[in-house]
Amino acid sequence: MTHISHRAQSMQASPIRKLIPLATAARKRGVTVYPLNIGQPDIPTPEPVLDAIRGFDQKVLAYSPSPGEEYLLDAFSGYYKKNRIQLEPSEIIVTTGGSEAIFFAFLAICDPGDEVIVFEPFYTNYNGMAFQTNITLKAVRTYAEDGFQLPSVEAISKAITPKTKGILICNPNNPTGTVYPRAKLEELATLAKSRNLYILSDEVYREFTYDGLEHTSIMHIPGVESHAILVDSISKRYSACGARIGVIASKNREVMAVCLKFAQARLSSPTVEQWAAKAGVLMDPGYFKPILAEYQRRRDAVMEGFSKIPGVVCKVPTGAFYVIAKLPIDDGEAFAKWLLTDFSYKGNTVLVAPAAGFYVTPGLGKNEIRISYVLEVGKLRTAMEALAEGVKAFQAHEKTTKAAVKAAAANAALPVGSLR
Amino acid sequence: MTHISHRAQSMQASPIRKLIPLATAARKRGVTVYPLNIGQPDIPTPEPVLDAIRGFDQKVLAYSPSPGEEYLLDAFSGYYKKNRIQLEPSEIIVTTGGSEAIFFAFLAICDPGDEVIVFEPFYTNYNGMAFQTNITLKAVRTYAEDGFQLPSVEAISKAITPKTKGILICNPNNPTGTVYPRAKLEELATLAKSRNLYILSDEVYREFTYDGLEHTSIMHIPGVESHAILVDSISKRYSACGARIGVIASKNREVMAVCLKFAQARLSSPTVEQWAAKAGVLMDPGYFKPILAEYQRRRDAVMEGFSKIPGVVCKVPTGAFYVIAKLPIDDGEAFAKWLLTDFSYKGNTVLVAPAAGFYVTPGLGKNEIRISYVLEVGKLRTAMEALAEGVKAFQAHEKTTKAAVKAAAANAALPVGSLR
Repeated sequence: MTHISHRAQSMQASPIRKLIPLATAARKRGVTVYPLNIGQPDIPTPEPVLDAIRGFDQKVLAYSPSPGEEYLLDAFSGYYKKNRIQLEPSEIIVTTGGSEAIFFAFLAICDPGDEVIVFEPFYTNYNGMAFQTNITLKAVRTYAEDGFQLPSVEAISKAITPKTKGILICNPNNPTGTVYPRAKLEELATLAKSRNLYILSDEVYREFTYDGLEHTSIMHIPGVESHAILVDSISKRYSACGARIGVIASKNREVMAVCLKFAQARLSSPTVEQWAAKAGVLMDPGYFKPILAEYQRRRDAVMEGFSKIPGVVCKVPTGAFYVIAKLPIDDGEAFAKWLLTDFSYKGNTVLVAPAAGFYVTPGLGKNEIRISYVLEVGKLRTAMEALAEGVKAFQAHEKTTKAAVKAAAANAALPVGSLR
Repeated sequence: MTHISHRAQSMQASPIRKLIPLATAARKRGVTVYPLNIGQPDIPTPEPVLDAIRGFDQKVLAYSPSPGEEYLLDAFSGYYKKNRIQLEPSEIIVTTGGSEAIFFAFLAICDPGDEVIVFEPFYTNYNGMAFQTNITLKAVRTYAEDGFQLPSVEAISKAITPKTKGILICNPNNPTGTVYPRAKLEELATLAKSRNLYILSDEVYREFTYDGLEHTSIMHIPGVESHAILVDSISKRYSACGARIGVIASKNREVMAVCLKFAQARLSSPTVEQWAAKAGVLMDPGYFKPILAEYQRRRDAVMEGFSKIPGVVCKVPTGAFYVIAKLPIDDGEAFAKWLLTDFSYKGNTVLVAPAAGFYVTPGLGKNEIRISYVLEVGKLRTAMEALAEGVKAFQAHEKTTKAAVKAAAANAALPVGSLR
């Protein structure tokens, strides 16, 4: 028997992706499955990005410089300045997706056994990166009831130990859709400075805020510069998830110096996709206007759908394209599976992500699901209709199952009891 | 003062890339610098690969499946079978470069503190991946004098401890150009089975063997299947280093199952470049014939150059496009820097990689350099001529410096001694 490492064995499979085989099976049975599990936008990748790919004219598809192509670092610097974030090209390293930026950040600030505070529910892939770097994510809970807002400074402070090296936020938030107000970020910055912690700020959904809300970056808060590490990606911004182009950026030179060593260890990020990314990053911000309007309509369609399910707890999210809803059922994971294996309504069903996988504290989020609203409004309405019917049917299913379990237990107990 | 992790601080900067700023400075002074430091082939990327990029016609640049695009896994499986390596698509995962394949392999088999045996000098980026995964590379030495052949089973066995989980080979070898004969691989396989260790076999230079030599893959050795993990990449094979498309493959299902979790944690490899990679992987193997002939001419030009430098120890390498030479000087790193800062011959100089960075044992490889022969023959001849003159001049420089140091020490010692 060959040996598999403990860290590999104990790593969680992706809660977002693990139900895909069941969805495939459902489709084979002729059921239309609406995929609401994954943050893969259906918005076409902007033409300038696709044009850049098609116009790639280098004769040798060579390594890029490890910190990224100079033209792309310049483009990012310009983009950030437009967003009132003062970052020079030398303060930016191109990463292979936002995932690698998180990985670099964990490696830069943590030794094995060190801790980073996160707010659960949180983006599940942080877990994967934490396992790979042997660090511990210490979760402070947020609640559906108040729209998953950041906890109080007191609650966060309680989670700080001598091993804590940073606090990781995602703003706008995946998986909750929450946008953190400036005042909260200022509190967090003050805490980080006073306890000498880093703030890792994942802002890949920066542009995706609704109802006219303005996004505040951690980089907008004065005085936190040497403590702030920005994690970013073009994946969602330009519907280019497959490009695997992200960014790690900081005004802390020591952080950037070690990140450069990590970047050299993996040689470079993909070359064609950096060329394509530049075209996206240089686009006029006006590009986002119709897209945001479209996502806002989608969010509204999802919320309208939830409003028709009695007992759902779900504040209107104001950013990203996710929402976590607490459902009037017992087991979200069983529900998500059952939707694919045993249910359809008018030939339709939905693929959702059980939210328990976004929590690390066992038992939390058990009756919650995450939805990505990355389909057009018409499809979302049909999907939400199926979901509502699904909840009703699953409530009945859970009731019957419980009654059957109770009866079986009673039957089983009877002879045992009578023997005593 | 913010905190930087110990692992990040202790990580080595790339010995291949760290002299690049000095080369840039030399070029600014008007010196022609021949880059022999990096394995970036100058061979044009094959037209089918570039055509695929230019023909990319998806509307949404979406995430690929985490284990890789099905069409690419199929293509790789067919390619391996042509190379008498029986690997089904389900036994292959596409990685973001060979670097990521190494990273996955280390994570899959090692917990922090575990050991993998390597043969020094070895590809320096293994070090980076070892640091990032907190494992120890235990080096068994190989020697310029016998062309860096694999050590005896006895020598390897001595390095095995209870923490050893695998043996990592690179065949054909970067940085030495050595190709391991089948008999040696069989010995290694027997050892791995008897001690229950994995063999991680990096075969990214599979096609690059010269003098009619045939390459033996670890996957060709019967009975070692569950112990063998193949690391591969299209970077060198199709002059597509910038694509960042590699492979990890094994017939060990448990290994592949945990690698899938790692693949999910970083979501996917780049999409456009997978599409391009397919075109390369499907090419007729006849493609390599003229390219190999070209590399063989280059190798010969390099060896001819070395033959003109008295005191050089360097067996003719038979694979990849690297060679390590032991030079009649004291300090290869000082030499490599000095070539860029203080030397030129007919307006030319060379950028080489000091070989000490390819050893982990302190003091080894100090008078060795690695050369990549990735330039055309004419340029290589000019470069080797400059190198030969450089060695001569540096020998004189070292002699003068030593004499000066000795004189200074004698002068300094005099008054101190007279006071005592």
